[in-house]
Amino acid sequence: MIASDTIAAIATARGQAALAIVRLSGPEALEIATQCFRGRDLTGVATHTAHVGYWQTPGGPRIDQVVCTVFRAPRSATGEDVVEVTCHGGEYVAARVLASVIQRGARLAAPGEFTRRAFLGGKMDLAQAEAVADLIQASSARAHQTSVAALEGHYSKVLEGLRQSLLEVCALAELEIDFTDEDVTFADRSVLEGLVTRGLAQVTELLNSCKLGDFVREGIRVVIAGRPNAGKSTLLNSLSGRDRAIVSSTPGTTRDTLEADAEFDGLRFRFIDTAGLRESNDQIEREGVQRAKNLLSRADVVIYVFDLTVGLRETEREMMKAWQQVPVIVVGNKLDLLDRKPVLPDIMVLSAKNGPDAVKPLMEALIKASTGHWSDLDVSRIVMNARHQGHLAIARQTLLGAQAALAAGRPTDLFTLDLRAAVRELGMITGTITNEEILSTIFSRFCIGK
Amino acid sequence: MIASDTIAAIATARGQAALAIVRLSGPEALEIATQCFRGRDLTGVATHTAHVGYWQTPGGPRIDQVVCTVFRAPRSATGEDVVEVTCHGGEYVAARVLASVIQRGARLAAPGEFTRRAFLGGKMDLAQAEAVADLIQASSARAHQTSVAALEGHYSKVLEGLRQSLLEVCALAELEIDFTDEDVTFADRSVLEGLVTRGLAQVTELLNSCKLGDFVREGIRVVIAGRPNAGKSTLLNSLSGRDRAIVSSTPGTTRDTLEADAEFDGLRFRFIDTAGLRESNDQIEREGVQRAKNLLSRADVVIYVFDLTVGLRETEREMMKAWQQVPVIVVGNKLDLLDRKPVLPDIMVLSAKNGPDAVKPLMEALIKASTGHWSDLDVSRIVMNARHQGHLAIARQTLLGAQAALAAGRPTDLFTLDLRAAVRELGMITGTITNEEILSTIFSRFCIGK
Repeated sequence: MIASDTIAAIATARGQAALAIVRLSGPEALEIATQCFRGRDLTGVATHTAHVGYWQTPGGPRIDQVVCTVFRAPRSATGEDVVEVTCHGGEYVAARVLASVIQRGARLAAPGEFTRRAFLGGKMDLAQAEAVADLIQASSARAHQTSVAALEGHYSKVLEGLRQSLLEVCALAELEIDFTDEDVTFADRSVLEGLVTRGLAQVTELLNSCKLGDFVREGIRVVIAGRPNAGKSTLLNSLSGRDRAIVSSTPGTTRDTLEADAEFDGLRFRFIDTAGLRESNDQIEREGVQRAKNLLSRADVVIYVFDLTVGLRETEREMMKAWQQVPVIVVGNKLDLLDRKPVLPDIMVLSAKNGPDAVKPLMEALIKASTGHWSDLDVSRIVMNARHQGHLAIARQTLLGAQAALAAGRPTDLFTLDLRAAVRELGMITGTITNEEILSTIFSRFCIGK
Repeated sequence: MIASDTIAAIATARGQAALAIVRLSGPEALEIATQCFRGRDLTGVATHTAHVGYWQTPGGPRIDQVVCTVFRAPRSATGEDVVEVTCHGGEYVAARVLASVIQRGARLAAPGEFTRRAFLGGKMDLAQAEAVADLIQASSARAHQTSVAALEGHYSKVLEGLRQSLLEVCALAELEIDFTDEDVTFADRSVLEGLVTRGLAQVTELLNSCKLGDFVREGIRVVIAGRPNAGKSTLLNSLSGRDRAIVSSTPGTTRDTLEADAEFDGLRFRFIDTAGLRESNDQIEREGVQRAKNLLSRADVVIYVFDLTVGLRETEREMMKAWQQVPVIVVGNKLDLLDRKPVLPDIMVLSAKNGPDAVKPLMEALIKASTGHWSDLDVSRIVMNARHQGHLAIARQTLLGAQAALAAGRPTDLFTLDLRAAVRELGMITGTITNEEILSTIFSRFCIGK
């Protein structure tokens, strides 16, 4: 599918910097660039070559010294003729370069339009295109690895394999329908059942990864709760200080919340010190409970800290019972003040003030509580995308329907209807099946220039 | 001068965007990039070619799909082997690409180090290198044009021409010294005087452009003063609304100051509505005067507005007399409320509420008051740089000394000493003469990656 117009956008971030890139893609890309480039005629140069010269709108002043890199169709990112104009950074220069190509007939690209053209040009499937957006937004090693794997097509391969296997089941079953008058049974029903069950297991496995995918993409919110002087802030510091690589202390949205980020095992954790819970522990009044609920409803894991020299009160145990929807790790702090290590079931004892090493077992417990058996899961089988999650959920429902129909000995055509619907949903993830609405939804999430 | 190590930095601005560039320069650039590039061996490719592949630290996970563009020494920006790795934007990917090349032996570049190498490699002189920084910071058409002209070397040519002509005068005079025993006079003293006077005139002209250069670089601060209800805010709106291209209303540093930016004739103006002057007009008490002084001391031009239906009071005339250090344009506002246009010498009458067109003559007066005969001045003869200003000021002093020595008939060697000093100062602008201290001062102003 060849677009008739040429699009252009600034592809790098705004701000003062050494370099910026203005990207052009489309049938007129080389022509338009040549009109503004005082170097050589770019329409005649070989693909994948870089050319140094001055940039100047015809009749206007010189704008900058630039490098034009030419990628000819179909060997470019979009499959069209592409020119990347590398100019100096800053607010002004790139904007002028962009304005000059717009003046010569290029159109300002819509968000994600370069990637959209790459998809339409067969350069990548839809899941790969979406991985580009995830890659740009990645803020942890796992998010980065998961999106790179998807960009490389590994995730698409998993989904396409699953779709193909379900298609084969369809084919087997539909063959039976075609010969239905002759009362022939091509496929053993138990074989079909086995194949559907296998597909269902795979879809379920992918769906189960969605929670992990959310964690990978968004990070994991850990609320630290406890009575005053239990050592919550000390714990926050030790937890966030362990790996200073990606750590920043930021004041929370409310004055009584302290937040800090840290990356562990490639996952980003946001620790929230709930200073706000302080006043509501002794007397669990309405307001205090509500405030705690609000914070806890946004938590992925809760660390509840108490002072070992004081002990865990009955009111605290009662309070924790209300938090059943989220994993709670109970921590007995200030171990250093005791003569010997107490044996407390389901409670982790430590000295938060002893720094990162002292909280290492807690970190491991945190990772286990939030992500479960992470290391078992292949990076190409993690669903990070809400849209995919939706299609997988529908696929699962229809496969369950197919399974039930098979088990009840219903007619084959009813069963294949469900199966076809599942295949269709999977195809909408990678873009085998698509429509304008899906494309618009996906690419409007992108930044301009991508 | 060949550097022994290879430097690397992220050359584009931080932030989520389609693309980012990590730049490598130095003898190992191709080797290091090849170790991380799963595409082809970059050490063997032709210069100015782009190569698509995956980026991966040896033994580590894949980082991104990238384009490596290779510029071989000496045909690169720095004169060394250069590899530009274009990867996806965002916080994570470029940082990982950079980390991988640092791990393979590249060194993190210091601010401006790429440009410094370009200078040391003879790719540009010092004034051109400094123009790169000005170009990146440019926020108006004039700032942009002036720095592009400097980048192209036009400004350097002016300075170098001046330096050469003074060197010739030196040579003429020194020839005389060499033959001093023989009592030969090679150069007519009046010819020498003429040459020195011409050089002096050129240096003075350049120095005179410095104020304009400041305006071009920093923009022009216009303080709008006047009594309450004179129409200051309306005027600010009309002035800043004329060209919405580069306009933003921002709250001032104090709550009683309103500021707005606008670009006219390629120059950036910042209009400051001095609401703070309001209370201090009727009774010019100490505090009011002080506050006005503070604002006015930072003004490049003052617009004083009064209401034509009220007239200009004596106290206001008195106040304006104190502002002699800055051009003041007096504006009689609310012309629309009068039956006929009054004839008031040195006062511009208008209706601010009639919008941009009504204040056009005021804008022209503003440009004239601040920049004088801008259009007469060649863009390559505008000094935007404070360092250059310093060298030119010393050059002027020494040339004045030389002129006086000549006029007084002093010995030739005294005269040439001054002349040599002037030549040296001019050489320090373009970098004919330089030292580590000058270089450090210049390049530390740059951003990393430049």
